Amino acid sequence: MQTLVLVAHPHLADSTTQQFFKASLPADGVTYRVLDQRDYDVSQEQAALRQADRIILQFPLYWYAAPASLKHWEDTVLTRTFVYGDHRYPLADKELGIVVTTGMPAQAFRRGGTENVTLDALMAPLAALAHRAKMSWLPIFAVHQFNYLDEPQKLRLVVAYQRYLTQSAPDTLANRQAWFAARLPEKVAQLKPADQTTGRLIATTVTQQVDTLAELMATLAMIKEQDDD
Amino acid sequence: MQTLVLVAHPHLADSTTQQFFKASLPADGVTYRVLDQRDYDVSQEQAALRQADRIILQFPLYWYAAPASLKHWEDTVLTRTFVYGDHRYPLADKELGIVVTTGMPAQAFRRGGTENVTLDALMAPLAALAHRAKMSWLPIFAVHQFNYLDEPQKLRLVVAYQRYLTQSAPDTLANRQAWFAARLPEKVAQLKPADQTTGRLIATTVTQQVDTLAELMATLAMIKEQDDD
Repeated sequence: MQTLVLVAHPHLADSTTQQFFKASLPADGVTYRVLDQRDYDVSQEQAALRQADRIILQFPLYWYAAPASLKHWEDTVLTRTFVYGDHRYPLADKELGIVVTTGMPAQAFRRGGTENVTLDALMAPLAALAHRAKMSWLPIFAVHQFNYLDEPQKLRLVVAYQRYLTQSAPDTLANRQAWFAARLPEKVAQLKPADQTTGRLIATTVTQQVDTLAELMATLAMIKEQDDD
Repeated sequence: MQTLVLVAHPHLADSTTQQFFKASLPADGVTYRVLDQRDYDVSQEQAALRQADRIILQFPLYWYAAPASLKHWEDTVLTRTFVYGDHRYPLADKELGIVVTTGMPAQAFRRGGTENVTLDALMAPLAALAHRAKMSWLPIFAVHQFNYLDEPQKLRLVVAYQRYLTQSAPDTLANRQAWFAARLPEKVAQLKPADQTTGRLIATTVTQQVDTLAELMATLAMIKEQDDD
């Protein structure tokens, strides 16, 4: 799967969150691009979109939407003819994901909360664009108050972010297991020689647990089936 | 009442709709400004906002939101300190209105319609901004497929637009009557001498009908009150 990450941030170099995301990018399968141009080579931008299977729009929430630079890119690159003209839909079935960072806690974004609106509701224009382009909408990946996260939380964020960029959707147990299984051997190989044995033991245990879990799921499914009779 | 109209349109001179709105502006009480700058004098922009009682954001719908120029203005001019810093809310109780033009028919903007989303839902980010600034949100003024309107429809649009810019909210019968009553004598005075008598007759009839209507409303209220007993 090819993922295209499009980043909109007016002060990218000063953003610890965005620098963190950049350092957390998976090694393969991801193209990272910053949307900071005034003029775009429209056909080149459109070609990049055509090549991607998953398109991620990544930005901080400025006045309840993406910064102007993302909208400028949309207004310039996403011509009507490209998105839905002549009944061709070159973006159809590609996935659209949103990585949005906010300075407020998660619970602020709900009716009755400080912001009194959900992030889902705020992303309505981008969801409408996905709908118009016949794209598949991924659940929003929101990071709230990044600077308040402690180190273990940041480590978990790296993995969650990498999965959002490259794991098969939807985020089922099976897809999650497959994602980890594909990466564990490589991670173990990167460990120091002294840690190799422990690493391999962990990898084996994980694989065994996946098998055990699969058996449990099968049993559970069988029980449920009997209940439904 | 002072109204500030802020217009965002990347090709303003080519837009018949925007030129129509410009020609339809009420003679008094309205300041019209185009948001086409790359750099803004922030304190000057903020002063203009402070002076207005009603702020109108006027734009065509581009990818389900305002053009990038409006967002650029927001991101530049609406500093956090200005909007809600230090617990001062300089925009509090001012009215925020949206004049949005679309190329689709009105019925496209509903769940199950072609666009599958309401204009209200699409304006969530601007509504959230109004909420954050403690402003009062006016119902959206939407103009669909302007170029398909016939002349009588366009004439009605002029009046509806002028009322949206300057009539007291909410749009009750009483506020509508007051708005027309305040403008009729002047309109009559502008008629050709030969039409003056007819004009005055119409003005008198309207005033009489307002009185009759007021009486009817009072009677109706009385009947309702008795029903509630």
